[in-house]
Amino acid sequence: MIINGKEVALRISNKIKKEIKSLNEKLTLCVIEIGENEASKIYINQKEKKCNELGINFKLIKFNENELESNIEKEIINLNRDSNITGIIIQLPVSNKYNINKLINLIDPNKDVDGLTDENKIKLLNEEKGLIPCTPLGIIELLKVYNIKVKGKSISIIGRSDLVSKPLFHMLLNMDATVTMCHSKTKNLKSFTKNADILISATGKPHIIKKDMVKDNSIIIDVGISRVNNILYGDVDFNNVKDKVKYITPVPGGVGPMTIIMLMKNVLEAYKKQKNSK
Amino acid sequence: MIINGKEVALRISNKIKKEIKSLNEKLTLCVIEIGENEASKIYINQKEKKCNELGINFKLIKFNENELESNIEKEIINLNRDSNITGIIIQLPVSNKYNINKLINLIDPNKDVDGLTDENKIKLLNEEKGLIPCTPLGIIELLKVYNIKVKGKSISIIGRSDLVSKPLFHMLLNMDATVTMCHSKTKNLKSFTKNADILISATGKPHIIKKDMVKDNSIIIDVGISRVNNILYGDVDFNNVKDKVKYITPVPGGVGPMTIIMLMKNVLEAYKKQKNSK
Repeated sequence: MIINGKEVALRISNKIKKEIKSLNEKLTLCVIEIGENEASKIYINQKEKKCNELGINFKLIKFNENELESNIEKEIINLNRDSNITGIIIQLPVSNKYNINKLINLIDPNKDVDGLTDENKIKLLNEEKGLIPCTPLGIIELLKVYNIKVKGKSISIIGRSDLVSKPLFHMLLNMDATVTMCHSKTKNLKSFTKNADILISATGKPHIIKKDMVKDNSIIIDVGISRVNNILYGDVDFNNVKDKVKYITPVPGGVGPMTIIMLMKNVLEAYKKQKNSK
Repeated sequence: MIINGKEVALRISNKIKKEIKSLNEKLTLCVIEIGENEASKIYINQKEKKCNELGINFKLIKFNENELESNIEKEIINLNRDSNITGIIIQLPVSNKYNINKLINLIDPNKDVDGLTDENKIKLLNEEKGLIPCTPLGIIELLKVYNIKVKGKSISIIGRSDLVSKPLFHMLLNMDATVTMCHSKTKNLKSFTKNADILISATGKPHIIKKDMVKDNSIIIDVGISRVNNILYGDVDFNNVKDKVKYITPVPGGVGPMTIIMLMKNVLEAYKKQKNSK
């Protein structure tokens, strides 16, 4: 059975739209773009479009690639203070001449809708309620909607990114799964994928997960997305794998649509946090 | 082959002793004891003894179990300010009428020789150099001394405590191991232990790891310690397991002696951090 992320995202979208309409205030997502990056432009456009759809104000602040770091810092501090700004994102990646970790940690944790500040990371570790990165949040939501229980299940995550895999590891562990983290240095990857009741692949390497590597009747979550000769590929060889497993997410239309809607949900979440902390 | 933690600890002990002797200043470890607990008394005595051995001042601050939390807070703040105090520990466990998380996070991260403040946790996550909990530090040191490489190895950790397993997970992942975290809700534990090149058990359940659960020629690190009818047990059925594996730590005399010497090392580490931050 194919997990329809697009459909689930649409349902959540409608729910959020209603909730936003019912508020007396207008929410605003602010994206900070530093320098020029083609992929980033596409992602920023998607965010703007989704904000428009849901009735969230969208604000883009562009810095050119030669901007002084101190000026970006000042802008973030102003955005933190500005009660009209609900959520703040720095669009990644950013040139490594900037101290991105420092910039991210300037963001007010209650406006950090990407869930990347140290304060939100530590909340996840301590099982407190903070803002959580959107992709892991979207994956957990998909599992819930499809009634896929994780307690006691063997879950292998491939990839060890701060954005996706590490937060996912802690979320799934908190939900009582047995979690293995695999990555590029893992030997005999197949032994870990074959053993997984739920396999989550987040490498961005096209079709590295083949039919012989997955367990019968398992659940496959494909977070990878890569483009070769203008064709989109997931991490999973979808056509050959799909008949062997119980559930699988397609690429596109699986995890992708969930990520952006979870960002919108985080903006709403951020609004509530700011309201409660007043 | 039996991993002799006692011997390794003694060698490190001698090295630390020399280094401390060569300093112009005297280091002080301060332990805060809240309420009465028999096991805690034993651990505190061990720490005092080890401090005496190495030429580190030992200071014990005792609060009775009815002490106001605000008074303990004030004491911690004073200890942070006191330049004669190098390291601060709150002896755990503490009655749950206290907000232990809050108390721990009052400790200056550069004096947090147990590595339990959020700031030190996040440093480990971000692969920055902070103070790391003593038991995981001792385990990594044992692996190094016995020249046991972890890169690309399959490692199963049993238990998911904040003190031992979670920091260990991140340290081993940073060292390129493939790490699985098992716990009380894990189904078919044997499938994970059998698959492990290195098995680290930290449950405190006597002899839950039997011979048929370990891989031939694997490495077994036993962090568990429990007392039944006044006999000490590790997590591993040592006598039956030892001939099947390449390396194994005994209980007692394995991980235990490493933990306390790593605490002393952390006091020295804390001293250097405070010196550098001046």
